[in-house]
Amino acid sequence: MESGIEKHGWDARLSLLSSIKFEAQRIDNRLQSFLAGEPRGLYSAAYYLPSLGGKRMRPYVTIMCGRMFGEADEQLYLSALSVELLHNFTLVHDDIMDRDDFRRGHPTVHKEFGETVAILAGDLLFSKAFEAASVAEEVSGSKGIVRQLSTASIKVDEGQFLDISFEKRLSVSIEEYLKMIYLKTASLYECSALIGGIVGGVASSSTRSVANENQLFLLAEYGKNLGLAFQIRDDYLGVFGDASKTGKPVGNDLRRGKKTVITIMASESASGAQLARFQSVLGNSTATTGELNEAISLLKDMGIDAKCIASAKEYAERAVKSLSAFPETGVRELLQALAHYASTRES
Amino acid sequence: MESGIEKHGWDARLSLLSSIKFEAQRIDNRLQSFLAGEPRGLYSAAYYLPSLGGKRMRPYVTIMCGRMFGEADEQLYLSALSVELLHNFTLVHDDIMDRDDFRRGHPTVHKEFGETVAILAGDLLFSKAFEAASVAEEVSGSKGIVRQLSTASIKVDEGQFLDISFEKRLSVSIEEYLKMIYLKTASLYECSALIGGIVGGVASSSTRSVANENQLFLLAEYGKNLGLAFQIRDDYLGVFGDASKTGKPVGNDLRRGKKTVITIMASESASGAQLARFQSVLGNSTATTGELNEAISLLKDMGIDAKCIASAKEYAERAVKSLSAFPETGVRELLQALAHYASTRES
Repeated sequence: MESGIEKHGWDARLSLLSSIKFEAQRIDNRLQSFLAGEPRGLYSAAYYLPSLGGKRMRPYVTIMCGRMFGEADEQLYLSALSVELLHNFTLVHDDIMDRDDFRRGHPTVHKEFGETVAILAGDLLFSKAFEAASVAEEVSGSKGIVRQLSTASIKVDEGQFLDISFEKRLSVSIEEYLKMIYLKTASLYECSALIGGIVGGVASSSTRSVANENQLFLLAEYGKNLGLAFQIRDDYLGVFGDASKTGKPVGNDLRRGKKTVITIMASESASGAQLARFQSVLGNSTATTGELNEAISLLKDMGIDAKCIASAKEYAERAVKSLSAFPETGVRELLQALAHYASTRES
Repeated sequence: MESGIEKHGWDARLSLLSSIKFEAQRIDNRLQSFLAGEPRGLYSAAYYLPSLGGKRMRPYVTIMCGRMFGEADEQLYLSALSVELLHNFTLVHDDIMDRDDFRRGHPTVHKEFGETVAILAGDLLFSKAFEAASVAEEVSGSKGIVRQLSTASIKVDEGQFLDISFEKRLSVSIEEYLKMIYLKTASLYECSALIGGIVGGVASSSTRSVANENQLFLLAEYGKNLGLAFQIRDDYLGVFGDASKTGKPVGNDLRRGKKTVITIMASESASGAQLARFQSVLGNSTATTGELNEAISLLKDMGIDAKCIASAKEYAERAVKSLSAFPETGVRELLQALAHYASTRES
């Protein structure tokens, strides 16, 4: 299907980016006040990563899905805050497990504050996510926000476990990989969309309509496919991206031997000779820039870049399609533009 | 005040222990089924610590506080399960932070499965706690279970941070120490009692009464004071306990230089000469058994053991008193016996 975004591309993209920026500011303000507390040493460690920025994509999805049903209110922002807190919690703990030293251009929490404080800061973000969700649920009188958030946090945990266990395996099928990124990444987008629909769709005023079961199902589909598009584009940028735009060293994922959609597609479609050349670089931390560029050329010759672009586009189109049953409003257009952005962004 | 337990001591103690054992079995069964899932490697690491036993004191408090208002039902057990899951989560992460190798007579989770899996297993227990709480809230139609659990998880996190930061400090006042153990330990007992009252006191059938604000306040007071009595007795047993009963090496806390109610009381009341002798042992990991025994004798000469017993007893009596406004039932008697047990137990 041909989405609205593709028809009037740049205008829609600019409106989207300005809308994201506007809502991100509102989330930033709430993150700051929500993470002020005592003991200071603990709360400043917890606020450190959120204060370093981030696109605030997940809360944006919550806010916009909620706005499909009426104006945004404080409960909608609180539930959006809960998914951003949960996301930051996962980053803090993942960085400890992956022994990553930098994120968002700064030392990771455990590098800055030590591992003990980083574990506690992550746990605090986790607790605060549930506090925000339970307050949003209480005040709005809607049901299922906390339940959705706990379901997502379980899935993200399972996904991170699978991701780590894949590193030790020789081969991973594309189906296994898609299941892993659904759990680790897309499930939180799914949750973000769903709780937006739950909170936004509560009949708390006459200007608001209630989301029905089918609408919630469609929002969940939107979120899930959006998350998959985001992650597959992320894998693409990790190999074919412009380092000056992504801020990540070219071919880093290849050097580390990380299983991504790129390496899995390559393993599945390469000839014996291609595979041998490719594998001399994969997971070789001392590979030279020349060797890396050769491997990237090889991937392009095999058409992996185009295949990856097509895959991200397919999920983005599914996301767009999920919204077609909703009224044609500016909010719907922004959500559809977001799906397109997820699959085509350069950074 | 003179509680019922003290009047007919042993009978009450035996009834209590048999009641705890009975309810622990019901919690154990639910822990097992609640922690069965895929990927196996993750779920078996999460179930490992709960499967090694534990007294199940916190869920017992929830169940019994709920039973003050009517028969126990599945929602009450689910909410009791949530506090036990949260408790086990804190143990898994605390053991990583404290670099402890053994718990419940077995290697700790990170020793058995590695640190990465231990972080994820802890996070899973945390998520599962909120899943149990949100299901209990949904099914029972009661409000505030998740809110209380998130409040407690924030407090426990703050308490653990304070506990760790106290280790680096030269002196800690008794008030600071009491605040820390309230946050780290007693707040979860407070939460356990409170959510028992919330779930148990929901008018879901004609045989049930609803807990009013004042009753919830009294249950919270009961839980808080019970938790303080438990922790102070724990500190007592760590120095004056019988190693064959506690399973912990005598004087371990002294050797490690941990701040406990014992060391703080000693620092506050010792003479200069006593303090000098005491401090030659405190935090001295190579102190001989003779030196340790001398320090313990010194503490007894200073009356610290009696002071500590009196303090635990005082909190237990406050807990007992909180329940005096409730009808004189067998359930109330068990909760009062529990407070007495908390402050006098030998293991």
